[in-house]
This record gives sequence, C-alpha cells and structure tokens, in this order.
Amino acid sequence: MRDFSADHRWLSLNTATVRKQGDLVAIIEACARHGIRAIDPWRDQVAAVGFDRAVRAVRDAGLDLSGYCRGGMFTADAARRIEARDDNRRAVDEAKALGAPCIVLVVGGLPQYSRPGSAASKDIIGARSQVHDAIAEMMEYAQQASMPLAIEPLHPAYAADRACVNTTKQALDLCDRLDPERTGALGVALDVYHIWWDPEVLPQIARAGKDRLLAFHVCDWMVPTKDILNDRGMMGDGVIDIKPLRAAVEAQGFAGYSEIEIFSNDWWGKPMDEVLQTCIARHRTVV
Amino acid sequence: MRDFSADHRWLSLNTATVRKQGDLVAIIEACARHGIRAIDPWRDQVAAVGFDRAVRAVRDAGLDLSGYCRGGMFTADAARRIEARDDNRRAVDEAKALGAPCIVLVVGGLPQYSRPGSAASKDIIGARSQVHDAIAEMMEYAQQASMPLAIEPLHPAYAADRACVNTTKQALDLCDRLDPERTGALGVALDVYHIWWDPEVLPQIARAGKDRLLAFHVCDWMVPTKDILNDRGMMGDGVIDIKPLRAAVEAQGFAGYSEIEIFSNDWWGKPMDEVLQTCIARHRTVV
Repeated sequence: MRDFSADHRWLSLNTATVRKQGDLVAIIEACARHGIRAIDPWRDQVAAVGFDRAVRAVRDAGLDLSGYCRGGMFTADAARRIEARDDNRRAVDEAKALGAPCIVLVVGGLPQYSRPGSAASKDIIGARSQVHDAIAEMMEYAQQASMPLAIEPLHPAYAADRACVNTTKQALDLCDRLDPERTGALGVALDVYHIWWDPEVLPQIARAGKDRLLAFHVCDWMVPTKDILNDRGMMGDGVIDIKPLRAAVEAQGFAGYSEIEIFSNDWWGKPMDEVLQTCIARHRTVV
Repeated sequence: MRDFSADHRWLSLNTATVRKQGDLVAIIEACARHGIRAIDPWRDQVAAVGFDRAVRAVRDAGLDLSGYCRGGMFTADAARRIEARDDNRRAVDEAKALGAPCIVLVVGGLPQYSRPGSAASKDIIGARSQVHDAIAEMMEYAQQASMPLAIEPLHPAYAADRACVNTTKQALDLCDRLDPERTGALGVALDVYHIWWDPEVLPQIARAGKDRLLAFHVCDWMVPTKDILNDRGMMGDGVIDIKPLRAAVEAQGFAGYSEIEIFSNDWWGKPMDEVLQTCIARHRTVV
C-alpha cells in the first residue's frame, strides 16, 4: 500500500466537491495553488466555461485527469433512447479531447428519474436489462476512441433515481458479460461511499483485479446522514474505514489517483481554499 | 399467490405505523374498529402502557401477532454486552407472554450507535462477527422458550447505525451457519423497503424457503426520500413493485401476514383512522 502521508501526489479532485465555490477555471487555478495535479471534471462544469476553454485550462495547468464525470443515465423510455445514446457518444468525444483515462458511468435508475419525461416504471429488472444493452452499444463507440468505461456501482439508496447497479458484484458481472476477455474497455469505478457497507466488497475487489479497477473515489458516510444525496462527509468525519479499502484495491495493482468526490451542502458552504486544504490533510492521514 | 383484493384478513399492522397517534391500547381499539386481526407491537409501546395491560389488551381483542419488535442491537463494547444479552432475554420472555410467533432482530450497526456509550469503532467486519456470536447466544435462550428469531436485513443505508446485516444473502448465511438443520429456530424477516433494490433478492428468497421465511413486511420507497429513517411510503406511493416480491415469498410457501410497517413523519401526522383505512385499501390493491 502506498504511503500517502508525506505528500498528496496521488490526490485527484473531483470538481463536484467545490462546484458551488467557483467555475471550472477557478477550480483549476485553486488546484495549481495547492499543488493538486489531477482532477475529474463534470460535464456540466466543463460546458459552463465552454468546452474549448476547459480543454485549454486543463492543458495549460498541466493537469492529469483521473476520469470524466459522467456518462450513463441509460434507462429511458423508447422515445428517449436515441437521445441517451447520442449524449453518451458526445461524452466519449469530450473525454477524449480532455485526455481522460476513462468515463465514469452512473447507469441510471428507473427511466422516469434517469431521463425525465420517460414513462414511469417500477421495473428495476427491466432497467438493469436496458443498462446491459446500452453499455454494450456505448462500448462499440468508446472502443473506437480507445476510451475505457468505468461502471460505478452506486449505494442502494440510489437504486430508484440514479443507478440500478448497486454492488461491486453486479458491476463486475456486467463487465464479465460485456468484456469477457478483459480488454481494458470496461471496468469499475469504486467509491468508498457506495461500497463500504457491502459484506462482499473485499472478495469482489479481488475478483476485479487490476484490469477492472479504473478509478477509486473517497469521501465518508455521515451518521446521521441529513440528506440522501448531498450530505457526504470529508474523509475521517464519518464511519468508513477507508485505508483497508484502498489497501484492497492497491493489493490488486491499482496505482492511480485517490479521487476525492464530496457532495455536501456543508462543504459547499466553505471557502474553496479551506476545502482543498482539508482534503489534502485528510488524504495524508485517513485515506 | 393469495388474492388480497377481496378482504384484509392477511393484513397485520406494525404498531410503529401509528405510534404518534395513540398508545398501544388505542391502536388495538382502532384495529378492532377496522377489522384488522393482527399486529406486531414494539417493545417501547408495550412498556408505555404497562406489560400486563398490553398482554390483556391483545388477548381481549383476540388479536394475532405477526412478530414482536424488536430484539437485537447486539453490537456493543465489552462493558455493554451483558446488558445487551439480558435485554434480549427479556424480549424473548415478553414475546412468549404476548404470543408472538417470532422476534424480529435488528442486529445493530457500529457499537456506538447500537448501544450508545459504547466506544466508537469503524470496524464493520468486527461488528458482523459480534452479531454472529450474539445470535448464537440468544438462540440458546430463545430455543428454551420455543421462540423463533427472525433476522431482518436492513437497507444498506442503515449499515452504520442500525444493522450491519444488509442483504438477504447475508442474513441467510447467518441462518445456515447457526441453524444448519433448519430447525425453525432461526429465519429472516423480509421488508420490501430493505430488499427491493437487491439484484439477488429473488434467488435468495428461493434459497430461504418456507422454513426461513418468518415475516414479510411492506411499505414503499419514496423518491426523493426526505428523511433516511422516517420517510417511508404508503404502499403504492413509491417505486417498489411489491406484488412480485410477495409472489416470491408465497411461492416458497409463506402463508403468514403481510405486515405494514411505515415510519413516516407524513403518515404520523394524519388521523389514525385515515391511516388504517388507507393501509387496508392499499393492501387490497397494490400489495
């Protein structure tokens, strides 16, 4: 397991962590101030500053990317499936231009939440089948661009509205069906927030292996959780024992960034520099 | 699958559903008014009216019980383990006197939440090991009273603070280890709220079989969920497709009550009779 205590060279900042404090250009400037050398930008934050400007800002700052957030939201009624497909193809093009190593896929829950306006459904099994087919379709396009896709299993609390892939096992089952030869085209993005509770997480990380481990995200689970989406914690403030999870992915050969992604009304209310200083301190001590 | 559309003879009311509207005696009277013939009372509601009075009220009303809520909260630091053990033994005695068919076990999460005052820990693997050992110990006592224990896997959103048993598979693994001969002493209580998201729920219900299926609870998952504990929905108001889950347990031979357990700030704010009328209507249409 790598020693993070001496510096933060393996810290990547998911830009949603400070999305309320400034635009993507301001975030990139703040990363430069704090010696943060990688980010994972969100598409809406990229779009807000203009795509070409975002590409230039990343390049001029010499930033690495640890991923691109996000593709997916595959579940839709028939009228919206072409829209979803094309939207995901644009995500591939953008990720390529930005130099991202993978696209993080949040696969969508029930269609009415994934692609609003879709006919309402309670058929989660059907949604999962759609996700399978849509990833297969997206992979064809992504492979032409040599852009790996990282399925992110989300906590079961999001099964209805954000992702019907809810365990590492389920994500890896999809990988095995769609990319049985482990070509590198498909893998998983594991966020401790989503997987820490899972009694099977350690054997599933071992099953994933280096080939499938495309991204590793950290934050913390707060007790109580005041808001199901936007009360994620700073590492160390909650109940997740992060180091054993990082040890497990690194034991498989994962040697990438430890990406900090915190959706938090509390942290969004603090100055950007304070948030980044805290991220760095916690990265060195509890991650 | 049984036809529930014509009456509500298989409806049981978990008394937490109307805990804010009246005490246990008032709830039992309301059940009589609405032709509800079974309840699952909570220990604190029983204690609030006095144990002997509760026993008499249940008996005088001719009510069946579908369970007794609840045992568990096994995870504790060393100083509090005897207290937890003795508390659970009292629950067995009470369940027996009340004529309950089983005790529902909410096993506890991390010790500091399960038994407040316990030393803080992030060791969920250790907590699970404690749960195993404590159920083994409780079974010895419960078997003398011929009182079955029903492990309730809780939604992973409660892994830290209420139960570190979070999937049906995990609960059944415990059953198989502690009661390999399926004596009837140990099984599961399945609540659609906790299990609906699980990609393995149907094969796990089949694995459970009639012997292990001791209780079946219903409510609904709301989107958005405004409160992680107390925003459960009335059946039909959320996203859970309940009938296929009931069909699955009944296909294994489960023939008991469909127990309504709704923790909801919204429903606690409505008159008891309105809540019970709605429960009955939904039981007949969407359960």
